Amino acid sequence: MEPRKRSQRAVVLLSGGLDSTTLAYLLDAYGFVLYGLSFRYGQRHERELEAARAIAEKLRFAEHRVVTIDLAQWGGSSLVGSGEIPRQPTSGIPSTYVPVRNLVFLAIAHAYAEAIDADAVAIAVSQVDYSGYPDCRGEFLAAYQQAADLASRRFVETGRRIPVLAPFLDVPKSAIVRLGLRLGVDYAETWSCYRGGERPCQECDSCRLRAQAFAEAGVPDPLLQR
Amino acid sequence: MEPRKRSQRAVVLLSGGLDSTTLAYLLDAYGFVLYGLSFRYGQRHERELEAARAIAEKLRFAEHRVVTIDLAQWGGSSLVGSGEIPRQPTSGIPSTYVPVRNLVFLAIAHAYAEAIDADAVAIAVSQVDYSGYPDCRGEFLAAYQQAADLASRRFVETGRRIPVLAPFLDVPKSAIVRLGLRLGVDYAETWSCYRGGERPCQECDSCRLRAQAFAEAGVPDPLLQR
Repeated sequence: MEPRKRSQRAVVLLSGGLDSTTLAYLLDAYGFVLYGLSFRYGQRHERELEAARAIAEKLRFAEHRVVTIDLAQWGGSSLVGSGEIPRQPTSGIPSTYVPVRNLVFLAIAHAYAEAIDADAVAIAVSQVDYSGYPDCRGEFLAAYQQAADLASRRFVETGRRIPVLAPFLDVPKSAIVRLGLRLGVDYAETWSCYRGGERPCQECDSCRLRAQAFAEAGVPDPLLQR
Repeated sequence: MEPRKRSQRAVVLLSGGLDSTTLAYLLDAYGFVLYGLSFRYGQRHERELEAARAIAEKLRFAEHRVVTIDLAQWGGSSLVGSGEIPRQPTSGIPSTYVPVRNLVFLAIAHAYAEAIDADAVAIAVSQVDYSGYPDCRGEFLAAYQQAADLASRRFVETGRRIPVLAPFLDVPKSAIVRLGLRLGVDYAETWSCYRGGERPCQECDSCRLRAQAFAEAGVPDPLLQR
C-alpha cells in the first residue's frame, strides 16, 4: 500500500474541558495535525478558553482559532443568559441547554475544515454520561453528517466527505478519564465548571458529571488537589 | 376550527438581495411576524446589509439582528477572500462558493428561532436559476431539517419542529421577480452584486442571474434605471 502523501488534518472542537482535551490527546496520539476551534459564544467566563489555549499550545496545534459568535443575544439558556445555573440535577433537558449549540459549532467547524481541506472534524460528545442535550446524541450526528455532506462542494464534486469523528459517543466519562491519564493529560489544566470562579463550584451539572467520572475511575481530580 | 392564539413568527434569512427581499414580502403577506437575521461574515462590502436594514424597517420587522461571524478568516472563497470574483460564468461550482455557508446560516437561524420559540425559519434559496452552490439544493435542505430537528430540545420534548420554509426552491428567478412586483417590492432597494460599487458591476454571477430574471420577467431592473 502506498503510504499517505501527507499527514491527516483534523479540526477539533476544543472547549478546554475534560472530554475535548482528552479528544485532542487521542487525535494527537493517532498522528493527526490538529487545527483547534474554540468559541466565545457568550458563556459566563473565560476560564475554559484559557484552558483551551494552554492545551493547544502544549500539543503544538498547527492552528488554534477562537471564533466569536454571540449565541447569548436572544437568550434561551441559563448558560449564556442571566438565569440561575441549577445547583441540583433536574429531570429532562436542563436550562443550561443552549439552543442547537453543537449544530452551530459543527457547521462552523465544517466551514473551517472545508476551507483548509481537512480530513476530519472531531467532537467530544458522549451520550453515556451527559446532561441530556439532544445535540450530543448519535442520531443527531448521523443526520448532521448527511446535511454537512450535501452542503459541501468537496463532497459533491469528489465524493470525499469530511467525517465527524466522535470517538467518545458511547464511552462512559470514567473511561475517558482513564484513557486521558494513559495519554498524559494533566486534568488540572482542564476546566469543566459552568461557573468561572477560582475553584470549580462542585454543584453544577458539569462539575457533578466530572466528579462522578473521577470517582468511577478511582482517581482524584487533580484540579481539586491544587 | 379554533383560531390560532397568536401570530405565527418566522426567522427570515435576509441578505438584502432580490430573493430574500421577495421572501420577506411573501411572509409578510402571509401574516407572519418577522424576525430578520443578516450576517456580516466577511463579505467585501456593506451594501447588502444596508439594503437588508432598509427592508426590515419598511416591513416593520419585530426584530432585525445582524450577526457577525467571520467566515473569511480561513479563506476558501473568492467572495470573502482576496481572490478575483469571476467576470465570466464558469463551469461547475464557482469560486464565490463560501464553504457550507447556508449550513452555518441556517444553524444560527435555528438557534435564534428556538430561543424565541418561532414557528419557522425561512430561506430564499432556489435550485432553478442559481450558481450551483450545493447548499442551495433541496436534498441538502431535507437532510438539514432532520439534523436541526434532532438537535432541538423543543422537537425532542414536544415533537414540534421548526420547519425550514424555502418557498422559492423550485421557482425560477423571473417568477420571483413577478411575485415581488405584485407584492410591492421596490427592487431599486435591493442589492445583488457581489461587488459593492456605486452601481452593480453587471459582470459577476449574481448580476448575471439578476439581469436574466428581469429580462425573462419582461420588466426593467429599477436598480439600473436610477
